[in-house]
Amino acid sequence: MNGQQNAVDPVRLQQVLDGRWAHVRQAVRDGLGADFVTIPGETGDEARTRVSALIRKIPTGVGVVDAFPAEYGGSGDPGGSVVAAEMLAQVDLSLMVKAGVHWGLFGGAVVALGTKRHHDEFLRDIISVELPGCFAMTETGHGSDVQQLRTTCTYDPASGSFDLHTPHQAARKDYIGNAARDGRMAVVFAQLITGGKRYGVHAWLVPIRDEHGRPMPGVTIEDAGAKAGLLGVDNGRISFDHVTVPRDMLLDRYGQVAEDGAYTSSIENDTRRFFTMLGTLVRGRVTVGGSALAATKSALTIAVRYGDARRQFTRPGDDREVLLNDYLAHQRKLLPALAYTYAYTFAQEELVATLADVQSGAEVEEHRQRELESRAAGLKAMQTWHATRTIQMCREACGGAGYLAENRLPGLKADTDVFTTFEGDNTVLLQLVAKGLLTGYRDAFGSLDGWGRATFVAEQVREMVLERTAARSVIQRLVSAVPGRDEDVAVTDRGWHLEMFEFREKHLLEGAIRRLRGGATAKKDRPFDIFNDVQDHVLQAATAHIERVTLEAFVAGIERAADPAAAALLSRVCDLYALSVIEGDKGWFLEHGRLTPARSKAVTGVVNDLLRELRPQMRTLVDAFAVPDTWLNAAILREEPARQDATAAEDAAVPSVPAGA
Amino acid sequence: MNGQQNAVDPVRLQQVLDGRWAHVRQAVRDGLGADFVTIPGETGDEARTRVSALIRKIPTGVGVVDAFPAEYGGSGDPGGSVVAAEMLAQVDLSLMVKAGVHWGLFGGAVVALGTKRHHDEFLRDIISVELPGCFAMTETGHGSDVQQLRTTCTYDPASGSFDLHTPHQAARKDYIGNAARDGRMAVVFAQLITGGKRYGVHAWLVPIRDEHGRPMPGVTIEDAGAKAGLLGVDNGRISFDHVTVPRDMLLDRYGQVAEDGAYTSSIENDTRRFFTMLGTLVRGRVTVGGSALAATKSALTIAVRYGDARRQFTRPGDDREVLLNDYLAHQRKLLPALAYTYAYTFAQEELVATLADVQSGAEVEEHRQRELESRAAGLKAMQTWHATRTIQMCREACGGAGYLAENRLPGLKADTDVFTTFEGDNTVLLQLVAKGLLTGYRDAFGSLDGWGRATFVAEQVREMVLERTAARSVIQRLVSAVPGRDEDVAVTDRGWHLEMFEFREKHLLEGAIRRLRGGATAKKDRPFDIFNDVQDHVLQAATAHIERVTLEAFVAGIERAADPAAAALLSRVCDLYALSVIEGDKGWFLEHGRLTPARSKAVTGVVNDLLRELRPQMRTLVDAFAVPDTWLNAAILREEPARQDATAAEDAAVPSVPAGA
Repeated sequence: MNGQQNAVDPVRLQQVLDGRWAHVRQAVRDGLGADFVTIPGETGDEARTRVSALIRKIPTGVGVVDAFPAEYGGSGDPGGSVVAAEMLAQVDLSLMVKAGVHWGLFGGAVVALGTKRHHDEFLRDIISVELPGCFAMTETGHGSDVQQLRTTCTYDPASGSFDLHTPHQAARKDYIGNAARDGRMAVVFAQLITGGKRYGVHAWLVPIRDEHGRPMPGVTIEDAGAKAGLLGVDNGRISFDHVTVPRDMLLDRYGQVAEDGAYTSSIENDTRRFFTMLGTLVRGRVTVGGSALAATKSALTIAVRYGDARRQFTRPGDDREVLLNDYLAHQRKLLPALAYTYAYTFAQEELVATLADVQSGAEVEEHRQRELESRAAGLKAMQTWHATRTIQMCREACGGAGYLAENRLPGLKADTDVFTTFEGDNTVLLQLVAKGLLTGYRDAFGSLDGWGRATFVAEQVREMVLERTAARSVIQRLVSAVPGRDEDVAVTDRGWHLEMFEFREKHLLEGAIRRLRGGATAKKDRPFDIFNDVQDHVLQAATAHIERVTLEAFVAGIERAADPAAAALLSRVCDLYALSVIEGDKGWFLEHGRLTPARSKAVTGVVNDLLRELRPQMRTLVDAFAVPDTWLNAAILREEPARQDATAAEDAAVPSVPAGA
Repeated sequence: MNGQQNAVDPVRLQQVLDGRWAHVRQAVRDGLGADFVTIPGETGDEARTRVSALIRKIPTGVGVVDAFPAEYGGSGDPGGSVVAAEMLAQVDLSLMVKAGVHWGLFGGAVVALGTKRHHDEFLRDIISVELPGCFAMTETGHGSDVQQLRTTCTYDPASGSFDLHTPHQAARKDYIGNAARDGRMAVVFAQLITGGKRYGVHAWLVPIRDEHGRPMPGVTIEDAGAKAGLLGVDNGRISFDHVTVPRDMLLDRYGQVAEDGAYTSSIENDTRRFFTMLGTLVRGRVTVGGSALAATKSALTIAVRYGDARRQFTRPGDDREVLLNDYLAHQRKLLPALAYTYAYTFAQEELVATLADVQSGAEVEEHRQRELESRAAGLKAMQTWHATRTIQMCREACGGAGYLAENRLPGLKADTDVFTTFEGDNTVLLQLVAKGLLTGYRDAFGSLDGWGRATFVAEQVREMVLERTAARSVIQRLVSAVPGRDEDVAVTDRGWHLEMFEFREKHLLEGAIRRLRGGATAKKDRPFDIFNDVQDHVLQAATAHIERVTLEAFVAGIERAADPAAAALLSRVCDLYALSVIEGDKGWFLEHGRLTPARSKAVTGVVNDLLRELRPQMRTLVDAFAVPDTWLNAAILREEPARQDATAAEDAAVPSVPAGA
């Protein structure tokens, strides 16, 4: 039952998963040892102190500052920096967030929104963490709709400086990482006002603490207090009481204010300018999605290895108790989650590669930039929800042991929990994806300003042609080979999977457009309802899109596998991913005539067959994640051999009582 | 949009929900004030100290010791004690668990498994918490299969005492509440051995600490350390090194050892005796399920009230931003969860009433006792999973605010999390339910000893007739009135809902039996596989059963509503519950010809209509839970009016920028 038939070398599988940035992954694995691992049960103060110290000890060579320009000490490789952050997430999520806030959000904003004078003055100190920084965008009253931030920054030509002000409590900066304790400077987002006119949200570099760590005059900093997780991150609230900000501290790549107060920008439309600025900060979302996935791999590794050691209930005719992983119900929990995790690994790899290409410095088409943002938003949502669900399931799969901090799962759950709502609320992000798809990217800016742009639905939507996102020729070949009748093709046929995913996405999008157009006529006087009434449909379409993109990435990933045994195993895992998605949405496919009742039942049967087939490979599948044991830091894994010996010993020493004796 | 049409008085609704034990609920609401509420961000030590002190301050009159016999200071009302514990769960889950371990599990075991001499000696001190106690059943190596505990307790006629011993590490008592710090005595479960023969698991009263709080000789106590939640509960590990236990400390209601070592029992079969003993302890599971639901009500109250105050994104043609609760996607999250919560409230009420009847002291049929155990197991599983999912959703529905400890949701999530695996792992519990159903309760004992009793499937199963569980005549009338063809009946017809739920349960059970019979022939040589291969099917059947029982309880609850407006609202909430279940399993109904594609889509349409219809009642629906504001203890609710004022003020003060200006 547990024999390793067709044994696959986990190292071969790991090579495929590690992908283009394998060197970065290995550098972090080699560079961050026992000093970096989490300490279960520490207090918030202890965690903050530890993490503050650790961020300065991360060897810069492992990739964490790769995104910075080479001339300041980086290597100009944003892809490498995302991958390095993902790896940090496997060590300690607080450390990842702390590093992500400082180098990624704060430093990233200085790079992307600032100009040479900002870079020259600050980037070296940012890279070395001499100048710890915050990213002060979110306010108590505005998180999802950041275009409506209430903080103002008003230029006064007389003094040649800005006046930064928090008008009321709902406008204070909230949940800001690095603010409560360590931050010295912040990139502050506020409404730019000059010459009595407003030009929308811009960003300034603002010192918030002096060299002794005391808040600067006019700056009030509060601690956001205890949180569900991320104990090592000092989140805080910042308010500004008419703080003077020198003119040259405006990060003015996209909008400039002259000494006399005249405003200039290469982008005339305020909304468009703001979303262009936001677009340059897309790396944060890519990092969060990847980090959630990395933490999921830690959780799955713990649960699968525990399930391969833990026994409960005797098998008939056998004194030895049954391994948890041998129960179908346990396989039904762990294996589809593993398959999703593999699928998202490949989708994330494609996404990071796209990011690297788009941010390579070369001029890119706006279409490519929009697509990157949409993919980043959608994958962030799907991966973080997958993480929350899967880590929860892993904790339950380990029973009472899964509730103890020493077994790491509580920390993984609590730390990743916020990922579903930070760097964009997942539901809002999926709406962005859907709107991008519905408008064929043509009006992505207009569609970003909340719900209910009734005008948009009356516009002509270009004919729906799904654009394949990866391994285009392979996918074309697979889809073309599918016979016309569903019944003539095996449910494990990859072309059929692809075609089913495409059909669902296209049908959902076309249906949404039909309903929106109908609504635009019937609900003219209730423009909010036009969109709101189809919101569930629209979110389904976005989900279907991301699942299709993910499947395509998986197919492309299998193509890259050099080792035939690894490719064959990946193909079975891909079957399980595709069929789990289809099984999970079988109601929709049955409603739309793409599954007959008999075929729908067959899908469930094949999923169960796949679970049986993949059972002996469970350990290999998690070993290929290559999470170092030191990082896993789970007592139940350290006790693994001892517990097995104890079980074997007790089985020998205490003959079980015959039932009913 | 938010107008209160057909306004329902929340107090009228509350009366229906509070039910038979309304007086207990109100006594706890009145009796536990601000001293009892949770303190966000406290350390584990602080929480333990606080909760240890608080348990002694709970006024005994509020019902927490109602289950104890009147002659010792209780009131002999197990139902009241369950309800009081549920209410404690709304104040502080650590306090509920601490109280539940001491009075419920420890005290309950002394009552149920002990005899008069134990009651006379200990019950008064247990009620007054003079003698804090533990329930030491689970071992590191055995949690779900407690019949296989490895701790031994061997009688020695020479000394007239037992020798209690932990043979190896996997046999240590683990996760034991009250052990790490406060417990003085424990009910310890171990294998009884006398005269060289084993008689299965029995329980002893064992002092574990002396009056100075030091472990007794031979007793080793370790702290289980930090946990995901329940910081106020001191869980620990206990090992025994040949500890002498006097003969009269055996809790000997179901099995006695004479001075010479002779064993006697009124129940000859060891397995049957053990499960009879376990059966008397069913109150723990009933309490955990109800407490999970009570915490869910707190979470929903917070999220719904926040969603009624929080605005984000402007509505077209309106400067005022849209309330979160006005978004369909938000309603899709909160309202079905509310409907499930109402449904489980009625199911829990039926369950507690059954418990009260069965444990009233009168002789009950074994059939009734088995049904109580099955229902308790199934509802515990369903309610605790519902809690975990719903509290997670509520935390996400509050965005970043939901991640802060000051807003309570992180504590609710972390504290209830363990409920899915303690007092029985949910998956194992649903298996118990399924086996009970499959054997028609005839062989419930035999079916409890793990998977794969191949003999059982060959037995004749009595014809499947579902027994209605509540409001039998009303339900019979509703079902009988349903026309033969599904298409002829409205999707909101209650009889149709009931019939659909019954059909699904019956079909799943009959299918499971067919597959098990087929397997018994085809897989004779692999007895484990016979059961394991249909495990997913069997778990589905158990779920369908509990959902049917829950719907029936809801129907019975509506019948009890005296106020017509309250009854009408409850009926719409019941529609939403029933249709959400059907929509959630529409794949199955389509597969089995009970939904056409068109009707399946209609169900989704009607669910969306119900959301719109119930939107104005959301606040009423949570107000009827009547969770005191002090208990909710969420900063975002205290700031509610301030935030609304701020929003109104800022809307007036800062004219929004026209899009594209």
